[in-house]
This record gives sequence, structure tokens and C-alpha cells, in this order.
Amino acid sequence: MTHHTYHLDTHRKKVVLVGSGNWGSAIARIVGDNITANPQLFEPTLNMWVFEEMVNDRKLTEIINTEHENVKYLPGYKLPTNVVAVPDLKEATKGAHILIFCVPHQFLGRMLPQIKEQGLESDCCAVSLIKGIDFNDNGVVLVSNIIRDALNIDCSVLMGANVANEVAAGDFCESTLGCSGVQEGALLQHLFHAPTFHVNIAMDPNGVELCGALKNVVALGAGFCDGLGYGGNTKAAIIRLGLIEMKKFCYRFFDGIKEDTFFESCGVADLITTCFGGRNRKCAELFVKDQGVTWETLENTVLNGQKLQGTWTAKEVFHILDKTHALNDFPLFVAIYRIAFEGANPKTITTL
Amino acid sequence: MTHHTYHLDTHRKKVVLVGSGNWGSAIARIVGDNITANPQLFEPTLNMWVFEEMVNDRKLTEIINTEHENVKYLPGYKLPTNVVAVPDLKEATKGAHILIFCVPHQFLGRMLPQIKEQGLESDCCAVSLIKGIDFNDNGVVLVSNIIRDALNIDCSVLMGANVANEVAAGDFCESTLGCSGVQEGALLQHLFHAPTFHVNIAMDPNGVELCGALKNVVALGAGFCDGLGYGGNTKAAIIRLGLIEMKKFCYRFFDGIKEDTFFESCGVADLITTCFGGRNRKCAELFVKDQGVTWETLENTVLNGQKLQGTWTAKEVFHILDKTHALNDFPLFVAIYRIAFEGANPKTITTL
Repeated sequence: MTHHTYHLDTHRKKVVLVGSGNWGSAIARIVGDNITANPQLFEPTLNMWVFEEMVNDRKLTEIINTEHENVKYLPGYKLPTNVVAVPDLKEATKGAHILIFCVPHQFLGRMLPQIKEQGLESDCCAVSLIKGIDFNDNGVVLVSNIIRDALNIDCSVLMGANVANEVAAGDFCESTLGCSGVQEGALLQHLFHAPTFHVNIAMDPNGVELCGALKNVVALGAGFCDGLGYGGNTKAAIIRLGLIEMKKFCYRFFDGIKEDTFFESCGVADLITTCFGGRNRKCAELFVKDQGVTWETLENTVLNGQKLQGTWTAKEVFHILDKTHALNDFPLFVAIYRIAFEGANPKTITTL
Repeated sequence: MTHHTYHLDTHRKKVVLVGSGNWGSAIARIVGDNITANPQLFEPTLNMWVFEEMVNDRKLTEIINTEHENVKYLPGYKLPTNVVAVPDLKEATKGAHILIFCVPHQFLGRMLPQIKEQGLESDCCAVSLIKGIDFNDNGVVLVSNIIRDALNIDCSVLMGANVANEVAAGDFCESTLGCSGVQEGALLQHLFHAPTFHVNIAMDPNGVELCGALKNVVALGAGFCDGLGYGGNTKAAIIRLGLIEMKKFCYRFFDGIKEDTFFESCGVADLITTCFGGRNRKCAELFVKDQGVTWETLENTVLNGQKLQGTWTAKEVFHILDKTHALNDFPLFVAIYRIAFEGANPKTITTL
């Protein structure tokens, strides 16, 4: 006979937001309000770690904590007063039960050991809002995996068709919460869901996160179509073929992927937004129109030096497909790579 | 012990195209060439039934048969010389093994009995390229069902993101062949597939056909978003929710629907094209911007008197949902109907 020990989880959760850029600040508005609305579930204050910088001779944290506005990254939108900017990472994350990550993924390598160092609550979990995947010699490395491995805690993800300023403005949109546990999913949904920000749960964190990264590769293909002046039929075909290869890539390299995930906001909706708006699409269009221009030039002139996710992901995806002898199974991803990096004629996008 | 009688189907198929409008003429270019390329499968001539009319004092059939161009409905594109225009329906369809239907579905009621009357080959089958569904007191009536019932033959469908002029111009696109038999599918694929017109088979004719009709309802929703000036996130969310309700509608009212169908060209690709281009989207945008305008006025001013499929389908879909007490399960379809026909505020599109 076995004895079960029931551990009733009665303490309220302390939520900490690690990051305060455009998207981080937009989500802070929602999370801050949801914490206040659910005092039985969450502690009242939302610590927000802010990379300290000076704005008009004042510290950004000070501005946020007095004026309740991130004037640098989300000007024009007030933050709830329970959002408290904290410049010190350890202080900000101390005692956290839920860590929300929303920083460029390059920062994680430095930050995660610091968070780990101070000791984590035993029931601490993480949510990553970071889009993008990484790659090492063994293949794909998800950002959530980096967090899981570094902190030894579970990590969910939140991904979808969510342009930060539109979310801040209260425009209706949807998002997908990818997580592996039902209770965790339910709790996190309380944290993120809002009347104009509908959060669906998908029990498929890997699928959700992969969609967020791979869609940027497809957006390059959509941009090439635009640059070539192709009509709606052709672009729709490329987007569809891209979705099929996204699915295939997920199934090929990960276990437990669920078909329904691709029908969620992180899948088809984010793909559509990215292929019609979005910087990857835009730069790919210019890449075709302005023959001979380099991606670096486009990043500097169009994106003020910010890096394109799509080109980088296309390169890494190609590398993995090549290494695993899978190039023939992903003709669109391969065509996009060869156009982007090997001087292939953009018209080869439709000769798959 | 049972005896099997093997009937080897050795005779070549006579293909007849019933219809010669914009789309019919575009597909005649592909089918005509494919017949020539596969002499072992098909008889060499493609009869094309043409509704006779006078163009510059000449009969349209005469122009087509001498100049090999449908100057009225697809000017600028030559037809293969094996396409023969025939104004008499019975003469055109005599001895047909494969009947391709591409006429406005209102014509079918008059035409099908004539075709039936002259006697059909025992192995005759049909393919419908007609988009749109009909409704009677018992619910949804698919165009393919009308054909099946009237002629007592099997009917496949071909649907996808296929604007006729883009197909005629040889722009790359895809299409979905919905059929119920493998051999039939393989044969029809030979008839329609081309290097710039990729035809995938889906063993789900009902799903394929329903997608073609229901997408027009979603396109109204997308147009409302455009009219309200909503951004890409919101529009992508509406398109996604529309796709989910399309699926749900198919599963609710039909058996044997396959999930994969929605990933085909007839599903997600056609939906995208229709929600970004397309007349239903356009008129819905103007309906919101130009408050008080009627659908009839929009049809007369924007479409030169042609009828919108989306509004009509939205109305019939609502009627069925209402009759089957399913309104609560289809909040988007219901919201679109109420905005279009009951004066509901267009902003209710996002308060589902």
C-alpha cells in the first residue's frame, strides 16, 4: 500500500518580469492588472527587472517608478502602479515563484547564472516570451530549454501574433500559452489572459516555441514573392508550403508535437501577420528589388542596426537539414536559404 | 468460393468542360495541354460547352474555334487548338467520361437534366470547380451533391487559391483535388496538374468544397477589420478564429472530414488570399467605412451587379446554426451575420 502525501499549494505566487523592452512593457500592463484582479493567486507587486539606463539625465527605473511609464520603450502607455522597476537582477528576482522572461536571448547566458546563484523557490517556474531559437552541434536549442537547463525549473512559453504596440493599445488579439502541465497552464492563463488579449493553452511548449522561430524563415519567402511582384495566389501558396514545412520540421526534430498547435495563434495567425507585415518580409522584399544589396546593409538602413531573425534562423535551419541529410524533404526552406545566401535566382522560390 | 470479374478499364477518357467563363477558360488551357500530353489516358479533343453570345457581330464559339482565344472572358491568352467550343450542351457532353463543371451554380438546375437525358457513359464521373454552397430546409447542400444526385455519378471537386487570370498568366499556385477514390484522384490529377499549377489530392471532397464556400464568410470579417482600421494582429486573430469555425462547421454537419484538408490550398491558402484580396473583403471594408450603405449598392457600384458569395453564405450559415441551436458554438460567424444584416456595431467582431 502506498501513502500519498498531498501538498496543498496555498501560498500566493510572487511574479517577476525579467525584461522591460517594448514587448515586456506591453505585457507588464496586462500582468500587473491581472495580479491585482487575482489577489488570492498572486502577490500584489510585479517586480520588473529593468536594464538601467539614463533618459534625459534621469534613471529609467526612477522614471518608471514615479511616472509609471516606460518612456523609452513604450511611450504613451501607463503601467499599473503595482509594477515596480528594479535595476538589480538578483534583488528583482528574489523569492520569485513565476519568472517571466522577455529579454533578447543573447542576454540569457549572463543573466541565468545570477538568478540561479541566489537560490530559487522550490516551486519556481518560468515563462519565456522570447522568440527565436538557437542551435548547437547537436541541433536545435530552444530558448525555453536554455532556461530549463540553467535554472532546473519548468519553462512554459507565450507566443502569438502580438505586435507590442497593438497589444498596448488594447487592440484585440490572441496568444498561445505553450506549457506541459494543466495546473501550471491554468495559473499562467490567469496571469496573461485579458479581454483584448485572449490566451489559449496548448499542451505543446516545443511546438509553440518552434512556430515562433520558423515563421520568420517563411516570411523571407513571402517577402521574396512581394519583391518579385507575384500575386496573391503565389504568395498564399508559399505561405502554405511554409506552414507544411514548419510542421514537418517540428515533427522531425521533436517529440510530442501536436497538430492543433499549428491552428493556434502561435501558428497560422502569427505566420499570416509576419508574412504580410513584419521586418523579415520587408527586408526580403527589398533584397529582391534592390539586387546586390546585402542583408547587413538592409539591417543597417531599414532596421537601424537591429538583426533580422529570419536570415539567421534560415541559415541555422539549413545547417541542421544538411547535417541530417534532410534537404530534400524541405524544398522551400532550402530554396529560401539558397536565395538568401548562395545567390540563387529568387524565382527558384516557386520551382520546388 | 467467389469469382471476381476484373474489368480492365482500357478505353481512353473523353473529357468535356462545361463552362467557358474566366476560370473555365483558364483551366481549359491546362486541361487541353494535359490531354495532349497524355494520349494514352485521354481522347485528344476537349469539348468546351460555351454559352453562345455575339461578340462584335460574331458568335463567340466561332471566334474561339478560329482564333483559339476566349476574347470575352479571358482575353490575351490563347487556348490550345484541341479545345473545341460547342454551343449545344447535349452535343458537347455526348459520350463524356469526365465532366468538368465550371458554370455559375444557378445554371445547374436547367443544365443537369439535359445532360442526363441523353444518357451517360456507365463510367462517367464529374469534377466541380464551382465555389459556393446551397441550402435547403434540411441544411447544407453542396454543389457536388446536386451534380451527384442529378446525374447519379461520382463528383470530385477542385478548389484552391486560384485567381483565374493569375493561373492563365502561369503564376505559380496550388489547388486541391477533393475526391473519394484513389484511382479517380490519380486520373484527375493528370488532367489538372501542371508545372505552375500544383494539384494535391485530398480524400475529403466535402471538406474541400466547404472550405471554398465558408472562407467567403471569414473574408467579410477580415474586411470589417480593415474597415475599422484594425492592425495585423487583430486581423490575423479573426482569420484564425474563422478557420477554427470553418473546421467546426465541417465536422458538425458532415462525416468523414479530414483535418489535413485545412492545411491544403483549399483551406489555409485560399482563406489567406480571400482575406487579403478578394471582393468579399473589399465590400465588407466599404460596408464599415461607408456607414449605411447596403450590400445591394456595393454589389452594383463595386461589382457591376455581380452578387457577393460571402453575404449570401453568411446568411444561410446563420440560418442553419440557428435551426440547429448551434449559435453559441460559432460566435464569429454569428457576429459577422449580425454586423452584416442586423445593424450590429462592427466592433462586436472582437467581442466574441
